[in-house]
Amino acid sequence: MIIVMQHQASAAQIAAVVARVEQAGYRTSLIKGEERTIIGVIGDDRPIDRTQFETLDGVDKTMPVLKPFKLASRDMHPMDTHVPLNGTPVGGPHIAVIAGPCSVESRAQILEAAQAVKEAGATALRGGAFKPRTSPYSFQGMGEEGLQLLAEAREATGLPIVTEAMSPEQVPLVARYADMIQIGARNMQNYDLLRAAGKSDKPVLLKRGMMSTIEELLMSAEYVLAGGNARVILCERGIRTFEKYTRNTTDINAIPVIKHLTHLPVLLDPSHGVGKWEYVAAVARAGIAAGADGLIVEVHPHPTEALSDGAQSLKPEKFAQLVRECRQVAAVLGRS
Amino acid sequence: MIIVMQHQASAAQIAAVVARVEQAGYRTSLIKGEERTIIGVIGDDRPIDRTQFETLDGVDKTMPVLKPFKLASRDMHPMDTHVPLNGTPVGGPHIAVIAGPCSVESRAQILEAAQAVKEAGATALRGGAFKPRTSPYSFQGMGEEGLQLLAEAREATGLPIVTEAMSPEQVPLVARYADMIQIGARNMQNYDLLRAAGKSDKPVLLKRGMMSTIEELLMSAEYVLAGGNARVILCERGIRTFEKYTRNTTDINAIPVIKHLTHLPVLLDPSHGVGKWEYVAAVARAGIAAGADGLIVEVHPHPTEALSDGAQSLKPEKFAQLVRECRQVAAVLGRS
Amino acid sequence: MIIVMQHQASAAQIAAVVARVEQAGYRTSLIKGEERTIIGVIGDDRPIDRTQFETLDGVDKTMPVLKPFKLASRDMHPMDTHVPLNGTPVGGPHIAVIAGPCSVESRAQILEAAQAVKEAGATALRGGAFKPRTSPYSFQGMGEEGLQLLAEAREATGLPIVTEAMSPEQVPLVARYADMIQIGARNMQNYDLLRAAGKSDKPVLLKRGMMSTIEELLMSAEYVLAGGNARVILCERGIRTFEKYTRNTTDINAIPVIKHLTHLPVLLDPSHGVGKWEYVAAVARAGIAAGADGLIVEVHPHPTEALSDGAQSLKPEKFAQLVRECRQVAAVLGRS
Amino acid sequence: MIIVMQHQASAAQIAAVVARVEQAGYRTSLIKGEERTIIGVIGDDRPIDRTQFETLDGVDKTMPVLKPFKLASRDMHPMDTHVPLNGTPVGGPHIAVIAGPCSVESRAQILEAAQAVKEAGATALRGGAFKPRTSPYSFQGMGEEGLQLLAEAREATGLPIVTEAMSPEQVPLVARYADMIQIGARNMQNYDLLRAAGKSDKPVLLKRGMMSTIEELLMSAEYVLAGGNARVILCERGIRTFEKYTRNTTDINAIPVIKHLTHLPVLLDPSHGVGKWEYVAAVARAGIAAGADGLIVEVHPHPTEALSDGAQSLKPEKFAQLVRECRQVAAVLGRS
Repeated sequence: MIIVMQHQASAAQIAAVVARVEQAGYRTSLIKGEERTIIGVIGDDRPIDRTQFETLDGVDKTMPVLKPFKLASRDMHPMDTHVPLNGTPVGGPHIAVIAGPCSVESRAQILEAAQAVKEAGATALRGGAFKPRTSPYSFQGMGEEGLQLLAEAREATGLPIVTEAMSPEQVPLVARYADMIQIGARNMQNYDLLRAAGKSDKPVLLKRGMMSTIEELLMSAEYVLAGGNARVILCERGIRTFEKYTRNTTDINAIPVIKHLTHLPVLLDPSHGVGKWEYVAAVARAGIAAGADGLIVEVHPHPTEALSDGAQSLKPEKFAQLVRECRQVAAVLGRS
Repeated sequence: MIIVMQHQASAAQIAAVVARVEQAGYRTSLIKGEERTIIGVIGDDRPIDRTQFETLDGVDKTMPVLKPFKLASRDMHPMDTHVPLNGTPVGGPHIAVIAGPCSVESRAQILEAAQAVKEAGATALRGGAFKPRTSPYSFQGMGEEGLQLLAEAREATGLPIVTEAMSPEQVPLVARYADMIQIGARNMQNYDLLRAAGKSDKPVLLKRGMMSTIEELLMSAEYVLAGGNARVILCERGIRTFEKYTRNTTDINAIPVIKHLTHLPVLLDPSHGVGKWEYVAAVARAGIAAGADGLIVEVHPHPTEALSDGAQSLKPEKFAQLVRECRQVAAVLGRS
Repeated sequence: MIIVMQHQASAAQIAAVVARVEQAGYRTSLIKGEERTIIGVIGDDRPIDRTQFETLDGVDKTMPVLKPFKLASRDMHPMDTHVPLNGTPVGGPHIAVIAGPCSVESRAQILEAAQAVKEAGATALRGGAFKPRTSPYSFQGMGEEGLQLLAEAREATGLPIVTEAMSPEQVPLVARYADMIQIGARNMQNYDLLRAAGKSDKPVLLKRGMMSTIEELLMSAEYVLAGGNARVILCERGIRTFEKYTRNTTDINAIPVIKHLTHLPVLLDPSHGVGKWEYVAAVARAGIAAGADGLIVEVHPHPTEALSDGAQSLKPEKFAQLVRECRQVAAVLGRS
Repeated sequence: MIIVMQHQASAAQIAAVVARVEQAGYRTSLIKGEERTIIGVIGDDRPIDRTQFETLDGVDKTMPVLKPFKLASRDMHPMDTHVPLNGTPVGGPHIAVIAGPCSVESRAQILEAAQAVKEAGATALRGGAFKPRTSPYSFQGMGEEGLQLLAEAREATGLPIVTEAMSPEQVPLVARYADMIQIGARNMQNYDLLRAAGKSDKPVLLKRGMMSTIEELLMSAEYVLAGGNARVILCERGIRTFEKYTRNTTDINAIPVIKHLTHLPVLLDPSHGVGKWEYVAAVARAGIAAGADGLIVEVHPHPTEALSDGAQSLKPEKFAQLVRECRQVAAVLGRS
C-alpha cells in the first residue's frame, strides 16, 4: 500500500507513521513530492487493515497497491483452469450451456424441462430445490424432494445437475445429489457457506452478488480456493443499478475483465442479467461474443405457470434458437 | 397488481389474460384507456409471482399495488413497537446508544472499551465475535471466546450486549451470551439465518444490506416476524453508490421513510454509513435529527491498533462529545 | 396513470381525488380492491405533473401507464428509421463503424488517424474539437481550428465527420463542418442544446448520459424529434455504477431494449463503456452480437501521447482486428 | 500520481516508463516492493491525462495523489468563504433559508408564495423561470416574464431572488434580475455555462448533479472560480441510486465531507433530496444537524395545483414549522 500524507503534515508526523508501519513488520520508502509526501509500505500487507493507518495524525488517505486475491489471480496461475462437468471441462474450447427452470416444481415439470433443454443442446440441467425468496409468503422450493427429482432427471437424460445450497449444513446434502453446487448471488458473501463449499469435493458455481464488485467476487472465490476446493466457476448475473426498465444490468465488461484477472472460468446468466425473456437471446449472444466460457439460462416448458421467474424464462423452442445462434458466435471466436 | 396491456393488444388477448388471472383465483376489473387497457387484479396477490403474467401475449408490464409486507406494515399495526433492551425500550422517547469496537480483540481491549463507552453515555455494548470479512486472510473474529469476553464486560459494566450471528447454527450460541442478536448487512437476505432468528426469544437487530432497498429490508424483517419473533429493530448503515470519497452513502431519507412504513424501531449506524471517523459525529447528529430511535457507533480505545474498521472508529473522548451533541438534538425533538 | 389510494382512504377522499382529476380534463374509472382502491385516469396525461395528485389527502402513490415518449416510440412508428450518413444508412443491414481520436490534437495527428481508420474499415471519422473536460486545467480542444482540420481529413479520405457541439450557439458552427452532430453524455439533458439540434438539418448522434435511464435517453431524443429533426441516432456508452475496476459499466441490455422501444438506430461506444483498451474489442463484439446498428470507437495512432482518453484508445492495428471480428459476428446476424 | 507496474514488469519496461514521465517534464522516484515496483511522479501533474501512461508496456494502473481542485480546496484557502446574499453572508453563523415554488407560474402564485415564505422565516426567494424538464411536453417555464415577476416579488417582500440559468446566453439576462444565479443539477457539467457564470458578478449557487461525485462538484466549482467569480455556494440535492421509494438519495455524508474539503458554503435541498413532502422536514433537520450552511426548500401555496414538483412542495404552514425546528437544531450547533 501507499500512505498519502496531508498537505501540511510535519516531519514528526511522517516519522511517526513510518515508525508505526515498521512496528507492524514492514519496510518503508518515502517519496517527497512538491505538495505531498507519500510513504510506500513494502511487503505483503494483505492481512492487515489498511485503514488503521488513516487514523494517524497527518495522514490523508491510504491506497492499496497489491491485488487482495492470490489463489484466484492470474499473476500466480497464468494458465486457464478447466473445471470438469460430466466429462466436458468448463473453461476450455467448449462452451457450457446450463439450462432449466428456476425452481423444481413437480416431477412432470422437471422431467419435461430436462428433456427439452437436452434436445435443444444444453450440456447441464439447472433447477432450484432450495430457493432464496425475497418474501416469506412466496414458494420456497421443494427441498430434498426437489433434489431427488433432479437426480431422476439426470438418470433420464444423462445431463449433469447444477443446484443451489443456501446454508453450510445444506452443502453435504446438495453435494450428495448434484454434480455442481451453486452459491447464489444473495449468498456470495455468506462466508460460512463459502467455507463449507471449500471443503466439498464437488465443483462450485459462484454467482456474483447483485451489488458486489468484481474484486469482491474474486475474494469470495478465494475463500473456496483457500478452503481446498480448486474447482470454482464464476458467474456474472447482472448488477443492481439505477436503470429500472430491466431487472438488473448485465455487466458485460466483467467477462473480459474476469478472464484477464483470474484463471477461473466465467459464465454469463442472461436470464437474471436482463430479466425479460424477449431480451435473453441478445444478451446471451453478447456474452459469448465477449468471451464467456458458457451460459446458464432459465428455461421453462410453460413460463406462464412458473412459480418463480416466469417473466425471464424461455420456452424450449426459443432456447433452441438461442443455442443455435450462440454456437455460430462461438465459432467466430474459434470455440464450439 | 395491475396488468398493463400493449398498445395494440387484441380483445382476444385481453380475454385470455382475464381468464388466466381468474383461473389463479382472483377477480378482475378492466379500465379501457384511450391508448391502453389495464386489468386490475382483485385479492391478495402477494403469494404469486406477478411476472408470470408478463409472458402472456399482449401484456406490456405488471405493477404491484399492495405493499409486499404485512406484519411489518404500519397499515396493520399503527402503533410504534417498543423493543426491550435491558429495561429501556428501544422505539420510545429514549434514544438508544449502542457502542463499542468492531471486533472483540482481547480481554483488555473489550473491558477497556466497555468501561469507556459506558462512561460516555452508551446504553449498550457492541462487539463482534464472528466477523464477516471480505478476505479470507483477514482477522475472522475470536469466536465463542469473544462471546465469553462480552459477557464478562456486561458483568463489569451492566451494559447489555449486542453481537452478530453469521449462520443459522450460531443463533442459539449467540443467544446464550447476547442480549440482542445482530444480523449483519451481508446476511440481510440469508433466509435460513432469518428463519433461525425468527425462532429465537432474543431481540434482533437487522441491518440493511448495502445493496438492498428499504422494501427488501422490511421483507427480511417480515421473515423474522413471520417466524414468531416480534422484537425486531432495523438499522440503516449506508448503501453502496457511485460516490467514492466515503465508504458508503448514508441513506438519511430511509429514517423518516422507515418510520412511516413500519412500526418497528430504526437505528442509524453512522460509522459504516460514512466510513471515516472525522465525519461520524455529523452523521450521527443528522440521524437523530431525522428521527432515528438510536445509534450504533464504533468506538475503539486505540483505533490505530484496531484489527478491523480502524479508520471509522472513534476514540472514547470523541464519542463522549458525540453523545452530548446528540442528546441536545434529541431534546429538540422532545426525546432524551 | 393510476392513482393508488391509502389503505384507509375514506369515500370522501376518493371522491375528492376523482373530482380533482376530472377538473383537470380527464375521465376516471375505479377499481375497488380488497385492501385498496385504485383510480384509473383516462386520456393522454403526459403533459401534466403526475405527482401533484400525490399531495391530495388519502393518496398513497401514482404510477404511469403510458410511455412518456411518442415520436420516438415504436408504438407510433413500427418500422426502423434509417439515418443517412454519407450514402450508407445507419439502422439498416450495414453496420456503421465510426472511429478516430478522442480529440483533434494537430493536423498531423488527425490526418494520420483518418487514414488509419479508413484503411481498417471505418465508415466515418470521429474527433472532438470542443471537449467537455472535468477539469478546467485539462486540454479543452482546438475549437474551430479543429473543425477545419476535420474537414480537411474528410477531403483526404472521403470519410464523413462526426463531432460534438457543446452549446446551442455551437450547433450552426459545427453543422457547417460536420456530417453528423454529436451531443455528448454530459449534455444529454442540456435542453437548449437539444432544441438547437432539433432545428438543424444535420443528423444527430445522441449519447446516453452516464447516469440517465433508457427512458430519459428517449425523452431527450423526443426533444430533437419534436423540434423537427427526425434524423436521430442513439448511443449507449456505459453508465456509472459502483463497480470501480472499469471506467463505466456498458449497459449491454440497453441495446435490445432500445431496439424494442424505439425505431431509431442505436450504436455502442465500447471505448467509454469499458475505459481500458484491452477490453474494447470484446465489448465491441458483444455490442454487435446484441444487435447494435454500429460502433463508435476511439482510435489514436499514438495512444501514449494522447491528450485525452489515452487509456481507452486503440492503436490502428488493434482496431483493424476489431473490425474483422465484428464483421464476422455481424454476419451471424445476417448483417454486413 | 503513482504508476503501479505489473507483477512481471521488466527492468526495461520500468526504464521506458520513467523516461516517458521525465520527457513529460516530471521527476520520478521508485519504490521496489516485494511483488511490484511503483513509480512516483513528482510535480503538479494535474494538467496531463494520467491514463496515457496506462497504455505503456508493463503498466498495471495509475493512481492520483494530488486532489484535482486547487482554488476550491481548503488546503490552499483554509478559512471559510462567506458569500453575500442581500447583506447576510452565507457560510457564516447564520443559516440561509431559500424557499419558494419550483416554477414561477403566475403573478398571483409567486407573490403569494413570496409573502408566505417571508412570513415563515425564509431569507431568500427561489422560483424557476427557465425550467429543465425531462419531457418536451411539460411546462417549460415562463421565461423572461417569470424573471420580471420574481423581481416584482422582491420589491414586495425585500427577499433576494435565486433563479436558474440554463445556457451561457441566459446568464446575463438572469443576472439582470436575480441576486444569485442557480446552475441546476442537470447542468453541473455544462462547461460553457460554468465559464459564463465565472464571468458574472453575481453569486452562483451550483447544485450537485444527480450523477456526480463530490470531487466532480468541486471541479465544476473550480471552473467558476478559475473564471474569476469567487462567490460560489454548493448545494447537495440528492443522488441517483438503486433505491426506488424516494426520488433521490440525499447524500448527507456530503455535507461534512464538503465542509472538510473546501472553504465554500454548502446548502442542502431536502425537497429534491427525498422527493416527497412528508419527509422534507426530517431531511432538512438532518442537513442542519450535519453542518449545512443553509437550506433550499420548495414551498407552494397550493401544491395540488403546482405545474411541477407538486409532490415534494410544502404548504407554507408546514414550511413555517420546518423553519422553527431547524432553528432549534442550529442553536445546538451554535448557529442561528
